[in-house]
Amino acid sequence: MTDEQNHTMTNYIDIPYPELRDFCNSLFPSYGFNANESKAITEILLRADLYGIESHGIQRLVRYDEEIRSGMVTVGAQPEILHETPVSACLDGHKAMGQLTGIRAMKLAVEKAGRTGIGMVTVRNSNHYGIAGYYTAMALEADLIGITMTNTEAICVPTNGKRAMLGTNPIAFAMPAEPIPFSFDAATTMVTRGTMEVFHKNGHPIPDTWAVDSEGRPTTDAGEVIRNIIGKLGGGIAPLGGSAEISGGHKGYGLAAMVDICTGILSGGLTSNHINSTPGEAEDAVGPGICHCFAAIDYGIFGNKRDLKEALSAFLGELRACPRADGKGRIYTHGEKALETMAARIGGTIPVNEKTLGEMQAIASRQGVRPPNFY
Amino acid sequence: MTDEQNHTMTNYIDIPYPELRDFCNSLFPSYGFNANESKAITEILLRADLYGIESHGIQRLVRYDEEIRSGMVTVGAQPEILHETPVSACLDGHKAMGQLTGIRAMKLAVEKAGRTGIGMVTVRNSNHYGIAGYYTAMALEADLIGITMTNTEAICVPTNGKRAMLGTNPIAFAMPAEPIPFSFDAATTMVTRGTMEVFHKNGHPIPDTWAVDSEGRPTTDAGEVIRNIIGKLGGGIAPLGGSAEISGGHKGYGLAAMVDICTGILSGGLTSNHINSTPGEAEDAVGPGICHCFAAIDYGIFGNKRDLKEALSAFLGELRACPRADGKGRIYTHGEKALETMAARIGGTIPVNEKTLGEMQAIASRQGVRPPNFY
Repeated sequence: MTDEQNHTMTNYIDIPYPELRDFCNSLFPSYGFNANESKAITEILLRADLYGIESHGIQRLVRYDEEIRSGMVTVGAQPEILHETPVSACLDGHKAMGQLTGIRAMKLAVEKAGRTGIGMVTVRNSNHYGIAGYYTAMALEADLIGITMTNTEAICVPTNGKRAMLGTNPIAFAMPAEPIPFSFDAATTMVTRGTMEVFHKNGHPIPDTWAVDSEGRPTTDAGEVIRNIIGKLGGGIAPLGGSAEISGGHKGYGLAAMVDICTGILSGGLTSNHINSTPGEAEDAVGPGICHCFAAIDYGIFGNKRDLKEALSAFLGELRACPRADGKGRIYTHGEKALETMAARIGGTIPVNEKTLGEMQAIASRQGVRPPNFY
Repeated sequence: MTDEQNHTMTNYIDIPYPELRDFCNSLFPSYGFNANESKAITEILLRADLYGIESHGIQRLVRYDEEIRSGMVTVGAQPEILHETPVSACLDGHKAMGQLTGIRAMKLAVEKAGRTGIGMVTVRNSNHYGIAGYYTAMALEADLIGITMTNTEAICVPTNGKRAMLGTNPIAFAMPAEPIPFSFDAATTMVTRGTMEVFHKNGHPIPDTWAVDSEGRPTTDAGEVIRNIIGKLGGGIAPLGGSAEISGGHKGYGLAAMVDICTGILSGGLTSNHINSTPGEAEDAVGPGICHCFAAIDYGIFGNKRDLKEALSAFLGELRACPRADGKGRIYTHGEKALETMAARIGGTIPVNEKTLGEMQAIASRQGVRPPNFY
């Protein structure tokens, strides 16, 4: 499921998926990435749009462009293994594009799970790695359970606080099932910064449970929250459950802290409150310092794989068949909505916000590549 | 942090902790548990009251009593290893008391983590195991990361649904730090059934975001929700985030489903929607079928343990030092409130609801043991 079901689709232009793909595949080499790297970055970036997760899709290109040009991302950097056991590794991303380090780390976790049953890999000194669900899908392809988490620049205010200390800190978990796998991927905040950006671009107010202002008070102004976050003026997004303990906000705060432990702490890297991913402020050797965690588990270490997969398939079918509440829509299982959206979009078009399209055209012009066609 | 900060402490009697401990240690042998088993069950039960988690403490004794006498719990049963690898095991709990199986399973996970770096153990055919945080504390004592989850009888309604399909399905995660560890333990629902019982016992309405009635509509009547759950009449507690997608309810729903996968599916056991833990309805050979998952991770597989522990200690200190929102209280890290409550109560008294005390006195009389003294 996505965070974006609430914006009205005004000012969107439908662009054929192959046009966006060809545009990205020609754009990334202009920064110095080789063809394989460009293809991988493009695939993860546009997978978000195919899944319907606009916040992590092509609308984010303007930020990747700034990060690459400012030196926050090092083109050509290769991740290095710092520490390794048969079940684990810790990598230094050396400021490579997060997507490239992410693929490398999840491949390593999958290889280890193939040999020992479980592989867990932490990464420090990386960059934004796109949608977490891409990496768990890699584990699914190897018939494994996939888990990943990442920290981000602090944007989330702990219960009773008024300063952002934690990132959006998503957790993704997937296990194979028929006809479609279970694939959970969600920020431990009420919403992501990307979703806030989408609401701001569309000029829509946000619900007053999503964020707090610089004094810790509820606000409906996405633009104010984004400005406060960028300017480090205080306030930010509420943890899952909201800003109050009565609605379970302390649980979202705890899950977000757990993600920072599995990523920033277990990689020997930075926690969200020390990450600076504002291009222009991070033109030193440090980089933003985003950290990730990846795990793959061969579920055959607990029993017969066919039986366990059939049991999950049956359970997911039961959830989808739950009787509906008065006036409510269909009951989804996680990953279902994204795969249906992808099936509709991959042979068709992707809706792109006109502001995003303008950013793409400006980038194309500067980088000397052809912008995508649309009709 | 606990779910119970909102009830007023009316109709509570202060009972010295040693009185409660001695009462439980004399009560459990009356059902046939040996001295070691009784001590372990007592320790986990009262640890909840020491932590301030009333919902899982002595107020639950009346339910354990019913479960043991109805045959849902098999006194003297021993867990059996069904499947094992160097990093994993799957156990059949054979309807033993959940606390006894839980200790056995977490010990096994800790032993495996000591040899391979990671141990993960699933359990099927068990019973309610008390507070999840007890088991993660076992891993902390071995200087390891501890993780546990459990499913429960269905009580949580998925997004857009009107029937309970998922349990309260808590997730607990702990890692050593100084001066106190990070110790997260929370249901993936808005609240637990135990918390609903506490509100109902105290005659307090619940916030309208916590639960839905039999038609999927918000309700403030804890008694109605509990009756509907017991009678399987529909409705139930909302997932963390609430019953609507706009407040992130689909995220809590996904986390709860993930817990059912790690417990019910990976143990080859039952998912929450198939568990029947109503004494009197489960007097057959099947038992309730509650399932658990335990993991221990030697964080030294990612780097120098002292450095990683120091980094976590610093991070937790930074969270606690976050500036406070207008009019809000102290900023806690997870586990802090419970340890402070325990420090105050272990040498003093525990507040027991007078209805709970009445239940204890009736049980003591029937089982022929001395009820606890109070002043």
